[in-house]
Amino acid sequence: MEKIGFIGLGIMGKPMALNLMKAGYDLVVHNRSQGSVNELAEKGATPAASPKEVAEKSDIVISMLPDSPDVEKVCLGPGGVREGLSQGMLFIDMSTISPQTAQKVHGEFLELGVKTLDAPVSGGDVGAQNGTLSIMVGGDAAAFERAVPLFEIMGQNQVHMGGPGAGQLTKACNQIVVGVTIQAVAEALTLARKAGVDPAKVREALLGGFAQSRVLDLHGLRNLERNFEPGFKLALHRKDLKIAEQTGHEQCVPLLATSLVAGLMDSLLAQGKGELDHSCLALLLEGLSGLEGE
Amino acid sequence: MEKIGFIGLGIMGKPMALNLMKAGYDLVVHNRSQGSVNELAEKGATPAASPKEVAEKSDIVISMLPDSPDVEKVCLGPGGVREGLSQGMLFIDMSTISPQTAQKVHGEFLELGVKTLDAPVSGGDVGAQNGTLSIMVGGDAAAFERAVPLFEIMGQNQVHMGGPGAGQLTKACNQIVVGVTIQAVAEALTLARKAGVDPAKVREALLGGFAQSRVLDLHGLRNLERNFEPGFKLALHRKDLKIAEQTGHEQCVPLLATSLVAGLMDSLLAQGKGELDHSCLALLLEGLSGLEGE
Repeated sequence: MEKIGFIGLGIMGKPMALNLMKAGYDLVVHNRSQGSVNELAEKGATPAASPKEVAEKSDIVISMLPDSPDVEKVCLGPGGVREGLSQGMLFIDMSTISPQTAQKVHGEFLELGVKTLDAPVSGGDVGAQNGTLSIMVGGDAAAFERAVPLFEIMGQNQVHMGGPGAGQLTKACNQIVVGVTIQAVAEALTLARKAGVDPAKVREALLGGFAQSRVLDLHGLRNLERNFEPGFKLALHRKDLKIAEQTGHEQCVPLLATSLVAGLMDSLLAQGKGELDHSCLALLLEGLSGLEGE
Repeated sequence: MEKIGFIGLGIMGKPMALNLMKAGYDLVVHNRSQGSVNELAEKGATPAASPKEVAEKSDIVISMLPDSPDVEKVCLGPGGVREGLSQGMLFIDMSTISPQTAQKVHGEFLELGVKTLDAPVSGGDVGAQNGTLSIMVGGDAAAFERAVPLFEIMGQNQVHMGGPGAGQLTKACNQIVVGVTIQAVAEALTLARKAGVDPAKVREALLGGFAQSRVLDLHGLRNLERNFEPGFKLALHRKDLKIAEQTGHEQCVPLLATSLVAGLMDSLLAQGKGELDHSCLALLLEGLSGLEGE
């Protein structure tokens, strides 16, 4: 059984690492703050003082970090994963970062004979705990096959999307569609509410036709129930749309609706609403429409 | 059995009228051009020379017309429905028009003791032919109940949304969500295509998660197959978004994403693409991204 290194034991990484341990894997773990490391060490994981040490003691290294700069630092910085790598190892970054950063890490590690997968997930902390994440994977096919047994423990489905960066590109597409659809639903339900038509009936009627979406179903219900407890925090979705915007810029694809929604999210962040569920996008439109406080 | 007047025998109205005739109703019919009138007359319908004459010879009058000015003219203009109404009749407008115009007709006809329903549909010409339309209804409850037997022939479900105009408001919400979601999907699939990731795989991966929608499913497939035969014509969706924009303006709800999409549709109309399916919204973004002709 391959020895697994795990770097980044936050709200997502910790339950993912725990699921691997429950499945019988030996883990070497590292985290910026020590609390989660101690917690996993008590359950049998080996603590490591640096990403370098994780790599030295593992066959496969997994990282789950907040953003592109974190991955770049942990992988390529001093004391980073690169310094501990040896030929034939596999590196799997499951963070949501830019396809560009993912491709950079792929390239740097390949020079050392180490294959890399970019494997961002969707499904949130609940999916991480229950091992029901969806995993979108970029990288070569042999590396993907080697990682499948791990993906099957952490998730309920994994799709090999293409070469390096294709997993991150797919995640960006996902966040574009979800973000813009939330805005679509917000515009419809706010118009209904303002015009005095029951938004619950509108949601119900629209779910029966071409306007149907999981966002209309789930975020629409949050809107009706005024439930903006995350779920998925607005600030994190804004971070993901920054990746989408950067990628659109580099690919010369003007993501007009995405940019609009990203800007609206910025306004909500400035109002201190970044910790609310991303369905709170509707609050901005309600405020602009004079529905505040209703 | 109540005698039914039917005004507007176009691509939607004709099959709806035919379904009522097949169910055994006697119809009095009128249309601006004579071809459809003759066709229905051969099957037993009574032709009428004007909307006024339709009203004089019917218990319930149904209209299915292109736009708000058409409904206003047919209802309130010279030789219009109003001139032929008598107390206790029911008027059902199934066109997609502005809630404001619907409310105006409601008010004018109520003065003559005639109740009105605004009852726009979704489901397109296929739904009209098969009697599987979804019908969104505004007006009073007793009028709705009286109309249900007719709705059940023309559609597969009808929802009573609220008072006068509530049906049209709901249809506007539907067209907002569908239009903005088409743009969301277009941005994601165009980014994938430009970045060299298979858009078919992206659609498939996204359908498994929060990004799922009927638009991603059906219009996403059209995008992959480059099939822009309507379906629902872009020009008609643009007309419906004009109604949404007007309603947003009157209700002081800034429909930011809807306005963006409406503007993009205008660009495509200027390129002569109004007769294509509304999923062709992606063509604009592809052109802007340098993917033209691929």
